[in-house]
Amino acid sequence: MVGPARFMTLLSCFELGIVDAIQKKPGQTAAQLGEAVGVKPDAVEQLLFLLVKERMVACDERTGGYTLDALADVPERDLRRALTYMNMIKVVALRQLFYLTESARTGTLVGLKELYGAEGTLYGAVAEHRDLRESWATLMDTVTARIDPWFFENVDIPAGSRVLDLAGNTGLGAIHTYQMKESPGLKVTTFDLPEKEEEALANFRAHGVADHCSFIGGDVFEGIPSGFDVVLIKHFLDMFDRDDVFRIVKGVHRTLEVGGQLHVMVPVYPEDIHDTDNYNVDFFPAFFIGATMGQGGPQKLSVYRRWLEECGFTVTQAISKDPAEIPNDVIPIPALLSATKER
Amino acid sequence: MVGPARFMTLLSCFELGIVDAIQKKPGQTAAQLGEAVGVKPDAVEQLLFLLVKERMVACDERTGGYTLDALADVPERDLRRALTYMNMIKVVALRQLFYLTESARTGTLVGLKELYGAEGTLYGAVAEHRDLRESWATLMDTVTARIDPWFFENVDIPAGSRVLDLAGNTGLGAIHTYQMKESPGLKVTTFDLPEKEEEALANFRAHGVADHCSFIGGDVFEGIPSGFDVVLIKHFLDMFDRDDVFRIVKGVHRTLEVGGQLHVMVPVYPEDIHDTDNYNVDFFPAFFIGATMGQGGPQKLSVYRRWLEECGFTVTQAISKDPAEIPNDVIPIPALLSATKER
Repeated sequence: MVGPARFMTLLSCFELGIVDAIQKKPGQTAAQLGEAVGVKPDAVEQLLFLLVKERMVACDERTGGYTLDALADVPERDLRRALTYMNMIKVVALRQLFYLTESARTGTLVGLKELYGAEGTLYGAVAEHRDLRESWATLMDTVTARIDPWFFENVDIPAGSRVLDLAGNTGLGAIHTYQMKESPGLKVTTFDLPEKEEEALANFRAHGVADHCSFIGGDVFEGIPSGFDVVLIKHFLDMFDRDDVFRIVKGVHRTLEVGGQLHVMVPVYPEDIHDTDNYNVDFFPAFFIGATMGQGGPQKLSVYRRWLEECGFTVTQAISKDPAEIPNDVIPIPALLSATKER
Repeated sequence: MVGPARFMTLLSCFELGIVDAIQKKPGQTAAQLGEAVGVKPDAVEQLLFLLVKERMVACDERTGGYTLDALADVPERDLRRALTYMNMIKVVALRQLFYLTESARTGTLVGLKELYGAEGTLYGAVAEHRDLRESWATLMDTVTARIDPWFFENVDIPAGSRVLDLAGNTGLGAIHTYQMKESPGLKVTTFDLPEKEEEALANFRAHGVADHCSFIGGDVFEGIPSGFDVVLIKHFLDMFDRDDVFRIVKGVHRTLEVGGQLHVMVPVYPEDIHDTDNYNVDFFPAFFIGATMGQGGPQKLSVYRRWLEECGFTVTQAISKDPAEIPNDVIPIPALLSATKER
């Protein structure tokens, strides 16, 4: 019940610069902090109560001076990552979730429509709305940079393969594929909506991989290009309900030759849904249904495994990233499924 | 970080009628529930994951059928009260808190302005906006009905007193005073903004107390009427920063004769701010600063005691309601301070 208030109180203490001011000059009172950041001392004191309760900040009862408590031990890099998450959730989801019930009922993003006049999904709206784009893209780049190395460590891409990165956006996945799996003759193609082509090609040139990477424009529901040995689907299947997941995976199965490989990276729910250390079911349904797609949400790894097999694949690998290797503030637990078309 | 998503996922399961549908006919699958409430089964399954995780609802892995788990043991009355709270927080605070940082910086309700075009406080906006009014008033009536008996049990109002209910809104507190403290000659006056007069007088008539209750219109910061033996300030001081609390309490002190009594009811923070069982500091600062007043927030009981004495009163009683007597879903811990003007 206090979730939205806790969330914004904590974030506001950072946005207002209160935490920075305490860090720069420990021992300041609410009055001094208020003057430093341009906020009435009463509001500084009120907002800091929560951080004192949670022992992120300490308050000396005698002097009224504040110092960093647990926050003092958080490395700057971790703090920035957590704040990037919180900012994304604030901008992309907080207000939009007010309309979650209507979004679930209609399968559309009522909040995005009401607040931004945007039809369609968040992924369309980010093109037109800078605040959405910046909060979203900043987080996604952080996520991709951290998770792609794990993905490519665990994926076998034979030398000289022709690789298709399905829904590969503006080419970052293709670039990572080439950089992390380089082999003579390796060719990687990004497949996404035609409007992404220009930026993707520019990215290929900027990373010096234009001779090895290319772009094909199209819609995954209208036809998937053939002529590839390996197909990658990263951060994509979780955006859709079961019917559409099946359309995508069956589409890939049709276009692959026998022996062709599919590698899927997707966030998953824990097999024991009661796992209280895992926050994925707390977050994703509302996030996908109410803020980004109007549908979708992850599944358990065992469900994705079954779905791939129901679409004709033989699953050769299904692993989750060890939660112990994932920082506390990072919500998705990514999983990797590898599969072969055997007939 | 998952606070806003948890909050709305839970509330949406009620708003969509999913919980009711499970209760009416246990054992239904997501497909059956989806048909019953008009929501795609995929979304029903996604939203219910959280309730299954929290063991409010159980899901039979074999049949996919849902039954109420912990929710089955919650009395209807308690459930309605919790949902009244959640609905109020959704309507009055959820979207508004997006603007908490700007509200703290300016001391104004930026969210209320952006979303409703309203200047001023929530208490002004409820007059014009039905959704705000209904969610707010429904909760406030519930709170008053539950807490007023405790207040009057612990307050001594001598027979025949002239009582002033400061910021008494539309008269409910005056009515309760008369009903719970009836004595020969007892007169109770509601003091609030002049626009409340008509409704207050109608309420007095409807409750048959028009001969004993009256209304004075005015602004607490411009002058408090004199000629009273007892002044009540309920649910009011927590809405203001320290300066304004002092203006109000000193104003009361000036108008009372020596021997006059003041009784204050106000939510308080725990004396040990680290108390993890108490959610007041999680909720109130953001709620007052970002959603209702642009300032304010409760204090500890010891702080209110000190403030009353600094304003010239002698405090004769300072008690908090036993948290064990307050249902889990109710956020404020009310306290009562009684004080006398001794000179």
